[in-house]
Amino acid sequence: MAKVKELQQYLAQCVAECFSTFMLILIGEASLAQYKFSKSEHRSIIAINLSFGIGVYTALMIAGPISGAHLNPAVSISLLTIRKLKPLQCLFYIIGQIIGAFLGALLVYYLYWGLFNRFDSGVRQITGENGTADIFFTMPEEGIGQWNLVFDQVISTAVLMIFIMALGNDFNNMISEVAKPFAFVLIIFAITSAFARNSGAAINPARDLGPRLFAAFIYGWKEVFRAHNYFFWIPIIGPIIGAIIGVWLFEGYLVLMKRFANLPNIVNIGSIELHPKAVPTDDDDLMVTHKLTTTRS
Amino acid sequence: MAKVKELQQYLAQCVAECFSTFMLILIGEASLAQYKFSKSEHRSIIAINLSFGIGVYTALMIAGPISGAHLNPAVSISLLTIRKLKPLQCLFYIIGQIIGAFLGALLVYYLYWGLFNRFDSGVRQITGENGTADIFFTMPEEGIGQWNLVFDQVISTAVLMIFIMALGNDFNNMISEVAKPFAFVLIIFAITSAFARNSGAAINPARDLGPRLFAAFIYGWKEVFRAHNYFFWIPIIGPIIGAIIGVWLFEGYLVLMKRFANLPNIVNIGSIELHPKAVPTDDDDLMVTHKLTTTRS
Amino acid sequence: MAKVKELQQYLAQCVAECFSTFMLILIGEASLAQYKFSKSEHRSIIAINLSFGIGVYTALMIAGPISGAHLNPAVSISLLTIRKLKPLQCLFYIIGQIIGAFLGALLVYYLYWGLFNRFDSGVRQITGENGTADIFFTMPEEGIGQWNLVFDQVISTAVLMIFIMALGNDFNNMISEVAKPFAFVLIIFAITSAFARNSGAAINPARDLGPRLFAAFIYGWKEVFRAHNYFFWIPIIGPIIGAIIGVWLFEGYLVLMKRFANLPNIVNIGSIELHPKAVPTDDDDLMVTHKLTTTRS
Amino acid sequence: MAKVKELQQYLAQCVAECFSTFMLILIGEASLAQYKFSKSEHRSIIAINLSFGIGVYTALMIAGPISGAHLNPAVSISLLTIRKLKPLQCLFYIIGQIIGAFLGALLVYYLYWGLFNRFDSGVRQITGENGTADIFFTMPEEGIGQWNLVFDQVISTAVLMIFIMALGNDFNNMISEVAKPFAFVLIIFAITSAFARNSGAAINPARDLGPRLFAAFIYGWKEVFRAHNYFFWIPIIGPIIGAIIGVWLFEGYLVLMKRFANLPNIVNIGSIELHPKAVPTDDDDLMVTHKLTTTRS
Repeated sequence: MAKVKELQQYLAQCVAECFSTFMLILIGEASLAQYKFSKSEHRSIIAINLSFGIGVYTALMIAGPISGAHLNPAVSISLLTIRKLKPLQCLFYIIGQIIGAFLGALLVYYLYWGLFNRFDSGVRQITGENGTADIFFTMPEEGIGQWNLVFDQVISTAVLMIFIMALGNDFNNMISEVAKPFAFVLIIFAITSAFARNSGAAINPARDLGPRLFAAFIYGWKEVFRAHNYFFWIPIIGPIIGAIIGVWLFEGYLVLMKRFANLPNIVNIGSIELHPKAVPTDDDDLMVTHKLTTTRS
Repeated sequence: MAKVKELQQYLAQCVAECFSTFMLILIGEASLAQYKFSKSEHRSIIAINLSFGIGVYTALMIAGPISGAHLNPAVSISLLTIRKLKPLQCLFYIIGQIIGAFLGALLVYYLYWGLFNRFDSGVRQITGENGTADIFFTMPEEGIGQWNLVFDQVISTAVLMIFIMALGNDFNNMISEVAKPFAFVLIIFAITSAFARNSGAAINPARDLGPRLFAAFIYGWKEVFRAHNYFFWIPIIGPIIGAIIGVWLFEGYLVLMKRFANLPNIVNIGSIELHPKAVPTDDDDLMVTHKLTTTRS
Repeated sequence: MAKVKELQQYLAQCVAECFSTFMLILIGEASLAQYKFSKSEHRSIIAINLSFGIGVYTALMIAGPISGAHLNPAVSISLLTIRKLKPLQCLFYIIGQIIGAFLGALLVYYLYWGLFNRFDSGVRQITGENGTADIFFTMPEEGIGQWNLVFDQVISTAVLMIFIMALGNDFNNMISEVAKPFAFVLIIFAITSAFARNSGAAINPARDLGPRLFAAFIYGWKEVFRAHNYFFWIPIIGPIIGAIIGVWLFEGYLVLMKRFANLPNIVNIGSIELHPKAVPTDDDDLMVTHKLTTTRS
Repeated sequence: MAKVKELQQYLAQCVAECFSTFMLILIGEASLAQYKFSKSEHRSIIAINLSFGIGVYTALMIAGPISGAHLNPAVSISLLTIRKLKPLQCLFYIIGQIIGAFLGALLVYYLYWGLFNRFDSGVRQITGENGTADIFFTMPEEGIGQWNLVFDQVISTAVLMIFIMALGNDFNNMISEVAKPFAFVLIIFAITSAFARNSGAAINPARDLGPRLFAAFIYGWKEVFRAHNYFFWIPIIGPIIGAIIGVWLFEGYLVLMKRFANLPNIVNIGSIELHPKAVPTDDDDLMVTHKLTTTRS
């Protein structure tokens, strides 16, 4: 009985992850399409970087209180390693995320159908002057070693997870539930502005794989997965490794600080408020810290 | 007697919608004019996209607590379908919005009178190298099918309404009344950065029709409504369809989540705090005065 | 005795206005200088528009709780007309603002001394290819009628004052003391992005006159005041007229809404919390320490 | 015994400063690298300026509640002069900051290893067309006098410290703990947009010296320290002088205001909440529920 209820909840969270990842990819990749199809003087890279950030904001509004809006298998898996998710739940999350990203890419394609055709005269190409596949999935720059591309994804996803862990820890009195979504706009902007030059800053297996699966229907399966020397596995494996490193690095930092920095009154060190605790209780309320809560009683 | 009071209230809300839509169009279309009349190296598309977002912020400051600052007949009509507005009230809203948009366009025209004349040597033209009508109303790109243009308006307005519904729902603990206007700056920026390439992202019948009516006095009635193969009806019908789809999609999502996601304590699922409930009650106040005020005494 | 205390307070507020206006002009005009002295590809107009907004943010941090950080004689005079300031106090405000703006311009000049000399080979010129005076004061575009330039300053300053009044009114539950400075970053960005094309969006007599007085020492008195057909009076008179129109327009709107919009619980309609009430009392503090502190004990 | 605990705390704060400065430099200098290695049309200076600001945001999330996240020896030393830090503690802070900056630069170098090699064909050069050292440390423009470069660092760091002091003072009711990190994004953006043209706006000895020490391993020790006429000492000494001036200027302003501006209820004038008080107490929590909370029960 409890089992059934749990499964129902996982399924609901799967839907929430799907819906919110769909919105992220729809907004983010539509901004990539708008950039590609605009004249040089009428566009700005800032619009893309902010749009992905605002896509995450939108996703948090939709699924934040339900599933935490991970949007990203690397985030879910890394939180699994510190037992913030159960294995089966994590699987439901990942499935929802990939399906959502697939659907988002699909909608972007039909939304800009006319401009795709005008751009390449109806002949879809992955790369080259008329190439459009970079709207859907990430591609590495020429001449960068394989280890460097993996390292790139590891580091940039570790930065993301350190940020997430820092937002969520109990003694951080400089953040609130309402401020978190704005903070995510900032970090996504910074990551795409600082770590996108090697290979487009996927930092998210679903963001890359979901649209790539859709792109396979357009550009051909072999072409899409063989592209750039089978690059496709790097934005899958790299972010997962990076996220796990980020989580455990911050956990270690927390343990050190708890021991030696004379921090008082920390209710439950290392816990992450941002994440799936399906039920927001009164204690979470508004923009406030646990710390305050304890002072109440 | 009660009828009279209700009518008075609707009229006041009509004035509020008119004033706030006026400010939105004044700021937004003035930024379009500044862009058009500036040298390429001294302008940025970011300024336009943010200005429309900040126009909405300004509008919320003026009319948010009075009418909800819909600014957009598609928003009002879609909320009518879930009974957040009454039919007559909705009519008052729409009239206010269109008049406001008309007046905003008028002011932009006289504000930049000198530069209009310098730009086209006094001969107003809708399109072409000296065309200026795109300051007032939206225009589609060449070579995009009619269905694609409708689809574009439907999807981008659905994104807007999903965002509005997500902000407003009761279990969203990651937003507050004070944070909402900032959230609108973000979503308007993202929509204009991601969905503007097909036809300028009107996503609002009043934003397009109001200034188009004013433009008819400048460029001629036939020319303005015949332009681009009678495009004018698409930013009217498309947003209305899109907004209704967005509202009901999110309502369905809410029902699912309520049933299966184990969310507790939801006061009044599906209700939207943002919208016209002329009187903000104590229940609204996340970070707000009212409660504080009352507890003082 | 009370008289002496009042004078002391006015003097303190004068110092606060001076300090905060100084910071605004220092940051804002330094960003203008950086823009001018940078290569085209390394600069963005967004940096200027945001810098002026952030200058206002900084000013509010410094003088907000002391004098309200008007920074702008047009704001002070318009508030005088609704008795939020006393005449003598208003005079102290204006003196502080102009001196502060003068000193800010002076510092920018010596800060970029080396680059001024590199740019014009040591021959200071107001306009032309090597002209630098637009770092200090605003200049109109060629070919725009006098009435149009006045109209421009009137409208854009009215927009500013409507925004200020909307932030400050009692029934606005979508703003808080902490959110206000961020809101000012937005509105200043929007005004400079939408209303700067005619004559640089001074919207502030002190912002234009203070640096112009300093510039007179550099470029010559006659040249600076005769420039562009004695333009200098327009950013003085235009903003004052615009601010007064904005204040009274919003006051009228408030009266209407109070009568007819069924707004409840409005403590003191039309009052402006943002403004000079040198002493922030308990009633002000929406999200604020003071009250919290006292109620704890 | 107490001595040991104090030393442990200093060491923990040293680690916190190291970790947070590392993140700042990693994000900031990676954005410099991305800018340098991108085509002109695909980049924007805005991305760099915001990335440094968001780097500070990230740093505050990590170390704000532990060490205050000074990130900057000039900030720490200036706070030492008003006894907010102890001398030994200050030394630990500075060591952490420089090591963190060193490590951040190191990671950026290996992250963009492939693009470094593509850019200069494997021959590292400090300046010139293929020069890359400006990713790591700041460089002055040609033809600016030594006094001017010192003055530049003094003024821009004074602006930073005035801002920090203004955020932290007790009677500032327009800021809260949660809003502070966002305020820092703004001020860093403004400083880099307004004061970077002379010599890159280091405003931080650690931000310049740490990466310069790393760069010495790449480009050679003599070259790195002799560069631009031994410029390296200016972003060390300039910021320290500027920060001290900023702190004392604001302290003087506070004394004046306290005496004459009729400010009530100031708990502890001149104290700075932002700064190292390892333990955030109840008194910090500005924008918080307490009132709301208590009224619930």
